[in-house]
Amino acid sequence: MYDYQKLENFCKKVFLKIGCSEKDATTAANVLISADLRGVDSHGVARLIGYVRLWEKDRVNPKPNIKIVHETPSTAVIDADKALGLVAAPKAMQIAIEKAEKAGTCWISVKNSNHFGIAGYHAMKALENDMIGIALTNASPLVAPTFSKERLLGTNPISVAIPAGEQPPFVADMATTTAANGKLEILQRKNEDAPLGWVQDREGKQTKNASAVKEGGALLPLGGDRISGSHKGYCLGAVVDIFSAVLSGAGYGPWAPPFVSFLPLAKDPVGEGLGHFFGVMRIDAFRPADEFKQHMDNWITRFRKAEPIAGEEKVLIPGDPEREMETKRKEAGIPLLPPVIKDLRILADKFNIEI
Amino acid sequence: MYDYQKLENFCKKVFLKIGCSEKDATTAANVLISADLRGVDSHGVARLIGYVRLWEKDRVNPKPNIKIVHETPSTAVIDADKALGLVAAPKAMQIAIEKAEKAGTCWISVKNSNHFGIAGYHAMKALENDMIGIALTNASPLVAPTFSKERLLGTNPISVAIPAGEQPPFVADMATTTAANGKLEILQRKNEDAPLGWVQDREGKQTKNASAVKEGGALLPLGGDRISGSHKGYCLGAVVDIFSAVLSGAGYGPWAPPFVSFLPLAKDPVGEGLGHFFGVMRIDAFRPADEFKQHMDNWITRFRKAEPIAGEEKVLIPGDPEREMETKRKEAGIPLLPPVIKDLRILADKFNIEI
Repeated sequence: MYDYQKLENFCKKVFLKIGCSEKDATTAANVLISADLRGVDSHGVARLIGYVRLWEKDRVNPKPNIKIVHETPSTAVIDADKALGLVAAPKAMQIAIEKAEKAGTCWISVKNSNHFGIAGYHAMKALENDMIGIALTNASPLVAPTFSKERLLGTNPISVAIPAGEQPPFVADMATTTAANGKLEILQRKNEDAPLGWVQDREGKQTKNASAVKEGGALLPLGGDRISGSHKGYCLGAVVDIFSAVLSGAGYGPWAPPFVSFLPLAKDPVGEGLGHFFGVMRIDAFRPADEFKQHMDNWITRFRKAEPIAGEEKVLIPGDPEREMETKRKEAGIPLLPPVIKDLRILADKFNIEI
Repeated sequence: MYDYQKLENFCKKVFLKIGCSEKDATTAANVLISADLRGVDSHGVARLIGYVRLWEKDRVNPKPNIKIVHETPSTAVIDADKALGLVAAPKAMQIAIEKAEKAGTCWISVKNSNHFGIAGYHAMKALENDMIGIALTNASPLVAPTFSKERLLGTNPISVAIPAGEQPPFVADMATTTAANGKLEILQRKNEDAPLGWVQDREGKQTKNASAVKEGGALLPLGGDRISGSHKGYCLGAVVDIFSAVLSGAGYGPWAPPFVSFLPLAKDPVGEGLGHFFGVMRIDAFRPADEFKQHMDNWITRFRKAEPIAGEEKVLIPGDPEREMETKRKEAGIPLLPPVIKDLRILADKFNIEI
């Protein structure tokens, strides 16, 4: 088990070494570690080496000039100038919060960015201002729309964070696929089958092969197949793609730049980099915040005490499992798998950082 | 087969008879018929008698004073004054479009309303103004969150309508459950089983019994069960509920008023009536509309020509099936089932309208 503050500090040093400013390195490390703390291991320090590889390929600009290129009172488009998404996203959320103070809400589409870590981190930034936060992003094309053999969408997550009063906030953070890629990686390491409905093979047939995506198959939209509603998961992933990338001018659909540096960029680009979409709504743009939060407490309490089905302990509120994990890991440390530790050692050697 | 214009006219006459203004009756009939035209038979004229019964129970006000009770440049809360949702929703969308002209976007939460028909109708109203339209609503509690025996949410649909250029618009319109209740009703009439993942019985066990919801069971969130991602469908349904009803001050969760007039209202109400949530975003609040629409055409064309899996004809774009159905039914007429015809005859007799 590894102490999260030491890990965060290590990440920060790596980001400094690739040329990030003190402030940006601090932010980027904080976003990454929050994924490990919340139990989304696939999006945390395990990805650190991936960001470094993108930087080596000149796909990440460590000294970006992130700027608004278009705006109205309640919107903006931001050109992230090839920044780490880990840096561009917090900046965009900060702008959204400031603009929402005046207009009531703000909606920002970001182009020319890179992978932004976990969506929940960014959505939750709104909470401290008594605002609802929303974060979406497109991602490497690994998902086949319903009836398609081809991979045209990313796992395109949706996060919505909603403040409560006495209760902890409501935080939904979900890929628009049946399962995130990270869950498949866990099965691969254990040499276990995937449930049907998670992936299809290269011919488009559902398969239990947890390595199917690596073998030319695809992740499936939430629902899994048509009869179970995969067209709805496809709709959601498509909306995330359009809001994040078509509205901003980023690469969309199969043109979204892959996270892994060994895959080539599209030869006929339709936009710049990856896209994100952020929304912020002031609670008191609708009703007094205290009143709203009392009702959120009532909503949460009612759902928590719903009668559970046999064999299940209780009904959960979105955000419960991640918050419990965070408390636990802040105390007990973060478990890292041998390949992740190996990658961190490679980075330590490369940049001459003590581990 | 019934001519849609004659049916629409019949609906309008019924709405006039319950006391709606000429304008409101015209609008309400238009919303209802659009459901039948688009193939969402469960939300069309089949529901006309249901609205009349709500009026008989004094739960619908035919002469509502629909007004803004709170606003900022980019938001509003509307009190629908117990209006038909079929009337309140178009009014809210019109206000949202006007406010978005100035602020770039507008987000409206509506309380004290009733069932608003199909979400897609309202979202699509934004298209003619080169805007993206979003429509959400909460609904009668028939859905059990993941791990719950109890029904705490409605089918809480999400619709997103996005303009394109040469191509028809992208129109997603989906319940946040695996399947809408209307699909179960079709299976019940045919005496057929439901696929697993659609419903659970009163003990919370998945069942193929298409009548399970009527027997104390529940609809299941998109995903069906935990392993297939039902917690994500639950998240989506919950967000729709909170945006529509907790933000506005309507009845939320299990307190949402049931559509069927024979079920009692909650004894301990937490808000007024049903809630909706609408969003409108000007395309040119992000980038020039022509540029955006060219890229939407490219997006749509690319997805349409994706290689289909064996046995499937092609990859569909959200909105394709409903648009094709509308073209067909405008020509060939709308099929009505015997029980629906019977209900219309009851209404014709009651109000002395020629059928």
